[in-house]
Amino acid sequence: MILVKIGGSVISDKTRKFHFRAEVVKRIAYEISRFFPEEKFIVVHGGGSFGHPLAQKFRIRDGLKDYSSRHGFVVTHLAMVDLASRIAKCFLEQHVPGFPISSSSVFITSRGKIVSGYLNSVEEAIRREFVPILFGDVSFDVEKGIEIVSGDEIMVYLAKHFKPEKVIFLMDVDGLYTKFPGGELIREISASELKELLTKLEGSAGIDVTGGIKKKLEAVSELVHYTEEVWLINGLVKDRLSMAIVGNGIGTIVRP
Amino acid sequence: MILVKIGGSVISDKTRKFHFRAEVVKRIAYEISRFFPEEKFIVVHGGGSFGHPLAQKFRIRDGLKDYSSRHGFVVTHLAMVDLASRIAKCFLEQHVPGFPISSSSVFITSRGKIVSGYLNSVEEAIRREFVPILFGDVSFDVEKGIEIVSGDEIMVYLAKHFKPEKVIFLMDVDGLYTKFPGGELIREISASELKELLTKLEGSAGIDVTGGIKKKLEAVSELVHYTEEVWLINGLVKDRLSMAIVGNGIGTIVRP
Repeated sequence: MILVKIGGSVISDKTRKFHFRAEVVKRIAYEISRFFPEEKFIVVHGGGSFGHPLAQKFRIRDGLKDYSSRHGFVVTHLAMVDLASRIAKCFLEQHVPGFPISSSSVFITSRGKIVSGYLNSVEEAIRREFVPILFGDVSFDVEKGIEIVSGDEIMVYLAKHFKPEKVIFLMDVDGLYTKFPGGELIREISASELKELLTKLEGSAGIDVTGGIKKKLEAVSELVHYTEEVWLINGLVKDRLSMAIVGNGIGTIVRP
Repeated sequence: MILVKIGGSVISDKTRKFHFRAEVVKRIAYEISRFFPEEKFIVVHGGGSFGHPLAQKFRIRDGLKDYSSRHGFVVTHLAMVDLASRIAKCFLEQHVPGFPISSSSVFITSRGKIVSGYLNSVEEAIRREFVPILFGDVSFDVEKGIEIVSGDEIMVYLAKHFKPEKVIFLMDVDGLYTKFPGGELIREISASELKELLTKLEGSAGIDVTGGIKKKLEAVSELVHYTEEVWLINGLVKDRLSMAIVGNGIGTIVRP
């Protein structure tokens, strides 16, 4: 089994509201179709310009406050369901039966960490040769009332449960760099080296790193222990996914 | 807590594909808003002209056959998710935070009967003053591979779990009739009388009863034991829902 995360910045131009790169998603689905169903897949996607602007507008991460935060919670979820439906349709066009599973229906969080999950539907879907599609979503949170459950957090949870052979993160850059911009692509890095890098990132304001990539790397350094290899590759470039699947990728490979 | 089932024939004119009665759904949401959040609600809706035509076209109830049934499974689910989103938007317009929970994500069936379910998200939603919206949907089925989990089956499962004070079925007729068309409205009926009526229906081809109403009555006769009263009322007529909620309804009341 291979877990694939399609980053929000791959699915959409994050500067444009409700922007959707249908051609990119269809190409990703096509690359998966080359290996499916012999290889099993679970896909998780981020919010891109669907979920993020709404989650910010309604301050979902501030927790449950008043009617407005409830309204925003519903509206953000509906945008994510819309995005997941579009992705499923792109997959169908490539004859891959991608089946959306609502993250907010199956996960309960505590400060954004999943503390209860129901994976029967994911398991039954895989058994029947579907590709489950989960997504970053709003969540009922035992500490904050409501929260966001990120696609990366879902990846960690799924890796722990399914122990996939491989985990692949599709991003809008070629992989991890020694510094960004301007540094060199890191072709291979061990879990302990990644951990060190993360500690440096903690202390340094000089390295240009978004909260997004730091959170992603924390997720990677956690889930790498439940798989043989994690790939960080460019999802916008044709064939990079296929190459990572066969094990001859261009990007960063993280090993336990 | 009150469980409300919005029948597919209330939501849409079943003879018109993808037909949606937004005004009717908004009016139902408005009637709920009169009592919410002091009263807790769970809403379940049927497939109407969204799910049914697709489920039939792709013969979902025949079980998992080939790629076409997988394709149909996804497409039918996407139509139901679209319908649930529209309903949630109508609820939001009436300031009721209706939150869709994907039935196929949280229920596994065996020949259409729910054998595994995850209700944490439903419970957490209610606790935070949301109105969970579940819906008739496709399901992964341990016997047939894939199946339909009907809104009525979900009602039975929820009633068993939540033991609501009241269960209300919104239909496109005023209630249960001694015969239909042409008979008299039955104002009150006991669980045992309903059981008798169902046995008669088994044996008689003379009484004009659709498979739909028979299945619904079987569901009612099962769930009536987990609540104080079940109402079968006309969801197309203004104020009928409000009247049933206060206990002074026009329609059929079924008591254990």
